[in-house]
Amino acid sequence: MSLADDLNRNLRDGSPVLAAALSELGRRTAFPPDIPHQAAEARGKELNATIGQVTDGAGAPLAPASLRSAFGGLERKDTDRAILYSPIEGIAELRRLWSDRLGRSASAPFTLPQVTVGLTHGLSLVADLFAGPDRPVAIAAPFWGNYRQIFALRRGARVVTGPAYRDGRFNPRAIVEALAGEEPGRPAVAILNFPSNPGGYSPTAEERRQLVAGLLEEADRRPLVVVLDDAYAGLIYEEGVPAGSLFWELADRHPNLAPIKVDGATKELSFFGGRVGFLTFALPPDGAAAAALESKLKCLLRAAVGSPPAASQVALIGALRDRATPGQIEAIRQRLAARYRALADALSDVDRYLLEPLPFNSGCFALIALKENLELDSNDVRRELLERYDTGLIAIAPRYLRIAFCSVRRAALPELVGRIERAVRGMAGRPLGTGG
Amino acid sequence: MSLADDLNRNLRDGSPVLAAALSELGRRTAFPPDIPHQAAEARGKELNATIGQVTDGAGAPLAPASLRSAFGGLERKDTDRAILYSPIEGIAELRRLWSDRLGRSASAPFTLPQVTVGLTHGLSLVADLFAGPDRPVAIAAPFWGNYRQIFALRRGARVVTGPAYRDGRFNPRAIVEALAGEEPGRPAVAILNFPSNPGGYSPTAEERRQLVAGLLEEADRRPLVVVLDDAYAGLIYEEGVPAGSLFWELADRHPNLAPIKVDGATKELSFFGGRVGFLTFALPPDGAAAAALESKLKCLLRAAVGSPPAASQVALIGALRDRATPGQIEAIRQRLAARYRALADALSDVDRYLLEPLPFNSGCFALIALKENLELDSNDVRRELLERYDTGLIAIAPRYLRIAFCSVRRAALPELVGRIERAVRGMAGRPLGTGG
Repeated sequence: MSLADDLNRNLRDGSPVLAAALSELGRRTAFPPDIPHQAAEARGKELNATIGQVTDGAGAPLAPASLRSAFGGLERKDTDRAILYSPIEGIAELRRLWSDRLGRSASAPFTLPQVTVGLTHGLSLVADLFAGPDRPVAIAAPFWGNYRQIFALRRGARVVTGPAYRDGRFNPRAIVEALAGEEPGRPAVAILNFPSNPGGYSPTAEERRQLVAGLLEEADRRPLVVVLDDAYAGLIYEEGVPAGSLFWELADRHPNLAPIKVDGATKELSFFGGRVGFLTFALPPDGAAAAALESKLKCLLRAAVGSPPAASQVALIGALRDRATPGQIEAIRQRLAARYRALADALSDVDRYLLEPLPFNSGCFALIALKENLELDSNDVRRELLERYDTGLIAIAPRYLRIAFCSVRRAALPELVGRIERAVRGMAGRPLGTGG
Repeated sequence: MSLADDLNRNLRDGSPVLAAALSELGRRTAFPPDIPHQAAEARGKELNATIGQVTDGAGAPLAPASLRSAFGGLERKDTDRAILYSPIEGIAELRRLWSDRLGRSASAPFTLPQVTVGLTHGLSLVADLFAGPDRPVAIAAPFWGNYRQIFALRRGARVVTGPAYRDGRFNPRAIVEALAGEEPGRPAVAILNFPSNPGGYSPTAEERRQLVAGLLEEADRRPLVVVLDDAYAGLIYEEGVPAGSLFWELADRHPNLAPIKVDGATKELSFFGGRVGFLTFALPPDGAAAAALESKLKCLLRAAVGSPPAASQVALIGALRDRATPGQIEAIRQRLAARYRALADALSDVDRYLLEPLPFNSGCFALIALKENLELDSNDVRRELLERYDTGLIAIAPRYLRIAFCSVRRAALPELVGRIERAVRGMAGRPLGTGG
């Protein structure tokens, strides 16, 4: 019996649904007993000639002083950690700190988070393990376009969608609708992203209830892996909108439903360039199923990027250890909340014959739809705004525009909305095809 | 005609061999015109609401002070760059600095290097573009085991091998021998890694001549993509052994042979935890073929990891700008050279009835073979060394042991060799199966 067969059996014992949903690549994968495995066994030996990194023979790196100098705010031993390889699963102290952070809102057992190269890499590892040719991946549309590259382009999975909004309101049954045409019994992956990109929306308590009920129904029909892309966790601006991850509401709720949490420092700690994300399963951390998943993740991570960046992990450890950090993050949230209110105000006055702002209450974005009867293409409007109004927005086909209010000053937001309105009004008055 | 079709046509015009060798994934891939593309178009606009990173509205990140403090050695604007997203292709200044570094030994045109998440990620991008089911990937054995996960496990390619050594000497025709059974006309990938892992070997001038001649012959038979894994570039310890990359000797030598250079800061600047690598083609940097490859690489990189780590890139920019760095790197090389000599001395006295040291002259490693007639398994020897001799080595099946002298003090190397000899002598005197 191969190592992968052993892992698959352990996974089946601990999580039949995840075992049933493994891709062909996921089934074949096991962390091999070669260099990193052997190096781990040699840790602490008097003579350790296992790892190909240049050290003084006692574990400290031999590195140029010019490289060390970038990390001037760190103690020597932390600079050493930033320069040396990270373990493939991530630096133990960071995994523990992030686990403690998750634990404050945990209502179910969860694995020690695997460190990833940002959240995209967490999603890409999920795609390796659970997506493959013909596997349906259900997403509410409009969605972040990179999901298509991660799941469909690279892994051959089939993206199926349901409408994120209906009649200008959030649709809590988008995933169920997306999977309606799929043969019962066929495993599926669903992606939930709240606060959403591009929508800037988080469901209300009642919408969450409906959303969860729909997913539990769906799990009666098929093994369902639900990926919680919690990139924008915590950025909630309206009283009464629940801020916690749906991961906890889905954990241990149905034998045929397995939630996977993908989160990280990118937005939660404003460390965009650090590329530190985490991947967490709703399974007991010390069980054989968790170990099987960790072995598979380590193999896939090593085969794609070697190990996660140590330098960023060390910077993040410092921030997570510092008691001042939560207050500093709250101050950032408050600045974003003020921008949110300014943008919501400006959009409330917008000409509804031209633009339909979709509901938003959280995160970094607002989404507006061009009125359908104008027959304008959002990319044409984007080009017009770039060329004539010195203004950059994201166009999402066919008729959405995304506003990233997280990167615009509050005072500029009314002017931004005014420019969009003027551009659309100007284009709506022209014959088709001459705009932008 | 799709965007990918356009890119494929441009690639065919500029590099027929790379176009012929594209994998099915490589052919389908093109950087989509969505968020990063649109954000790039909006750079410099008065109001820029394109990117989902939290800024002050003028381009500086809003980030916790506790995170900034890790980068205490950097100026404010460099800390900002470390915290913000890197462009997907890498930070322009770093690409230029690395290009200048390559340019000092360049004898042919080359593309602006794509920044990758360490060298493994560069190899993984090459595998995405040029490896797929049934594609032969030729490697001299023994080789770094992760090549198998990168090319075979993840991409379904078929690893074929030739012996790296024959009669205790380097075999310059290993790649040609590995491909001997392949149907003529079928595209292939070859991997060259000098200084080698696990061998610590770099070919002499005469061996390089034979190696290049063999590859040119092979390119008469098939489209041949040659990956130069230059991880250990520069770590040469014997006079007369050429230090330059074979990339330059293969560039523009044969219309049916395309070299790809994978290198980085991991070993060249001792920045193991930084995860900064580079991927470079031997094509004019401003041509349409280079642009086609860059579009494909950016799409694949974004779909796997989002963007490369900015924090590490900024630290590396500082080191590359600093005039003291080359001297500091040379000092590290000299320390490794002293260890190399100490290990070579110790191995020259080893009992040849037990152990056969393979030739080495460079890099981080030495490789020794257990004498075949002892019928010992190298993993049993490794376990014996761990358990009874407090010593860690890497075992490579069936009968190799790799010594990473880069991470052992010079003074300890004779003792290390002594322990290996004693362990093997002890085990050789025992019946099989009781060792370790």
